[in-house]
Amino acid sequence: MSIGTDINFFFSPKSIAVVGASPTPGKPSHVILENLKRIGYPGATYLVNPNYASIDGSKCYSSLNEIQDEIDVALFVLPAPTVIEIMERTENVKGAIIVSAGFKETGYAGTKLEEELKKIGERKGIRIIGPNCLGIYDAVSRIDTFFTPVERVRRPKRGGLSILTQSGSFAELIMDEMASKAIGVARIVSYGNRVDVGETDCLNFLMDDEATKVVVIYMESVDDGRRFVEVASRCTKKKPVVVVKVGKREAGVHAARSHTGAISGRYEIYKAAFKKAGIVEVDGFEGLKDACKVLNTYELVDGKKVLIVTDGGGVGVSMADACENFGLEVRELTEETRKRLSSKLLGFSATGNPIDLTGSVTDEDYVVALEEGLRDAFDVVIVTVLWGAPEITEGLADKLKEVRDSYNKPLLICTPSSEFTLRMAQCFEKNGMPVFFTPESAARAAAVLAGHWR
Amino acid sequence: MSIGTDINFFFSPKSIAVVGASPTPGKPSHVILENLKRIGYPGATYLVNPNYASIDGSKCYSSLNEIQDEIDVALFVLPAPTVIEIMERTENVKGAIIVSAGFKETGYAGTKLEEELKKIGERKGIRIIGPNCLGIYDAVSRIDTFFTPVERVRRPKRGGLSILTQSGSFAELIMDEMASKAIGVARIVSYGNRVDVGETDCLNFLMDDEATKVVVIYMESVDDGRRFVEVASRCTKKKPVVVVKVGKREAGVHAARSHTGAISGRYEIYKAAFKKAGIVEVDGFEGLKDACKVLNTYELVDGKKVLIVTDGGGVGVSMADACENFGLEVRELTEETRKRLSSKLLGFSATGNPIDLTGSVTDEDYVVALEEGLRDAFDVVIVTVLWGAPEITEGLADKLKEVRDSYNKPLLICTPSSEFTLRMAQCFEKNGMPVFFTPESAARAAAVLAGHWR
Repeated sequence: MSIGTDINFFFSPKSIAVVGASPTPGKPSHVILENLKRIGYPGATYLVNPNYASIDGSKCYSSLNEIQDEIDVALFVLPAPTVIEIMERTENVKGAIIVSAGFKETGYAGTKLEEELKKIGERKGIRIIGPNCLGIYDAVSRIDTFFTPVERVRRPKRGGLSILTQSGSFAELIMDEMASKAIGVARIVSYGNRVDVGETDCLNFLMDDEATKVVVIYMESVDDGRRFVEVASRCTKKKPVVVVKVGKREAGVHAARSHTGAISGRYEIYKAAFKKAGIVEVDGFEGLKDACKVLNTYELVDGKKVLIVTDGGGVGVSMADACENFGLEVRELTEETRKRLSSKLLGFSATGNPIDLTGSVTDEDYVVALEEGLRDAFDVVIVTVLWGAPEITEGLADKLKEVRDSYNKPLLICTPSSEFTLRMAQCFEKNGMPVFFTPESAARAAAVLAGHWR
Repeated sequence: MSIGTDINFFFSPKSIAVVGASPTPGKPSHVILENLKRIGYPGATYLVNPNYASIDGSKCYSSLNEIQDEIDVALFVLPAPTVIEIMERTENVKGAIIVSAGFKETGYAGTKLEEELKKIGERKGIRIIGPNCLGIYDAVSRIDTFFTPVERVRRPKRGGLSILTQSGSFAELIMDEMASKAIGVARIVSYGNRVDVGETDCLNFLMDDEATKVVVIYMESVDDGRRFVEVASRCTKKKPVVVVKVGKREAGVHAARSHTGAISGRYEIYKAAFKKAGIVEVDGFEGLKDACKVLNTYELVDGKKVLIVTDGGGVGVSMADACENFGLEVRELTEETRKRLSSKLLGFSATGNPIDLTGSVTDEDYVVALEEGLRDAFDVVIVTVLWGAPEITEGLADKLKEVRDSYNKPLLICTPSSEFTLRMAQCFEKNGMPVFFTPESAARAAAVLAGHWR
């Protein structure tokens, strides 16, 4: 089997069949039909259910074989034993997405079913995503096989992030988060129990996928450790790969086993492998969320030295703590830079790192602090704007953008999340500067950019 | 000086004088006048500025001594050297809040001024809050000396949390956060450079303050380590005390020094002292935020065993990881409980800890999971509700409340933060169940409740 290339059709299928299509609103298979329509899937959609002649005005086939077409993707939304029966008889299917649960994650009988499923797939040359998964959300090719109604989990717009995950719930969580932050995604794949297609095949596809700028992986376990490291090592030369590894601790390991039947194994081995492959590892959902936000705007940097500019001393202290905590270097300014800053700023300001402009700050003070501070060699900048100072204005965003662009350093904003500051946050985001709402969150994001320098 | 009792007047002043009152909107002293009015401070407000006969229709005195009244609290909003001059001449002031910066935090000259200020206070028996601070926001006695306009930093409603902080910016950040989450506060004190009144005096007052149910401290350094531990040890017997210590790492230590001139010292010593005093330590702003939220509803518990009930396997795995990471114990269910659960729940459900009800969950499944799970001895419960399952309803909140109340265990909710789920979150919050929007945040909050059992 030529590695990777054979799963490309999942991301540009000419036809999708929904096996187990239901006319009942709210039923998973009906939600999927609605979502394929809503997203505007441009290929042929076939409905399969022997109990109906038609559903919502569309013809309903009694079996897959009855369809006079090669089916690129057959979606199975049926009890596990029925899935096996149908797969066994199927003649015209290239790939299957098995949404159904009831396999390995449920114990002995389910494990037997899953082994059978695997064998059928191998024998018939049908590539399988799942079982126990949500399948594919693809904003590029307009595919949405997630059975969650859009009213409950919003879909993000099109963008450059692609997400690979064993966990469907994690996919939904991050999907919803991206939608609410207007961060765009390319492809999201939830492969659940991963009987066949997993992160390595997908990563191999995404590596050369022009729509994908950044790859994000939620991992309980790895499908093929050696090949994963090999593929990831090549991929990270082209685009950033971020991983959140869960099932690190004993309880998580147990939970992962009963979740997707995954043996999540010793965390230290994973950690070393990620490092070797040039993968940026982040911690938990919060780490992933911040990584998505910052990588939506900025590329990785070539070092780990962070400059902090603040209008609140205490927030600056917290930020410095958080930055060091996440492995960044909060280096002092050079003596010359301190002198220049002292001559240009108010007497109250502290010309260290953080540069503390205090609650008496003006827009111009921020510019001075950045222009002078950035003469020293920093890799990334965090600016806190608490908006307590009466003299800072909405125009600050434009000014900060100008400095950032002329120095070409990623600049992250940290502000509180009140009604007023959220409104102001839009000024920064419109100017392409990502905004974070806690010192820890900004520090985590900056640490992502510093990647493996930490 | 009898410990503590002598600062009570700061929290129920009969008169407040604003020294350096300005008629110019936006100037700090003018903002303070507006805020005192807005909050409805019931005592006498005196304006002092020799350059004006009246401001906004109120008489303006040329000096403090001209006022024919004992001044409980004189607020100084003037350049540092002028503060010293006026303090030197003052005859009728009990306590001073020195908002002005330009003291120890600015270097040698400022340090000299601060030493002088300290001496004047001691000689004249004037208790001092500050300098370089915001002073007092007191929702009980209706005092607001913060010079930040309410449009920029919202004020929380009245409630049971009291907050002590060296940092004004941190005070604003947490204040705004509390306001946006509808969490009420009693007293907030920002004491900046802390030339006199600090956390120990304030804690001593709050210990017997009936309006205060929980004390939260942002600490760069401690004023009097020995006495602090002594007072805190007594306080934690009556109400929870939560501390976030910043300036833990080298960069933070530096930053703290140029912020409030504080020597933040070796973190390990603080850590041990907090433990000894029964204080719950949290990490950073995120830790503090989650602590405030959870302690607004629940009291500390007598152990660290957490039960996780989830409708998403991956989120359950992350939650288990996060809980162990924050020192909680994610113990397996007993064999009998697992058996009972298996007989009552869908085949797909995983009856470990987490109990994974999967995306096919119903309201009733949650109730069964909790009722059975809580037969084993857990101290705190985290329930995730991703709302992906079509069969869960708004009525879930009432049902969870019922189980929680009958078992009398704190129950925390974790949901995504989309438009839909935020609306649903209100159902839980109305029923007194705090909602967290990331697995890590819920785990941090549960860990706060487990306090020193971790």
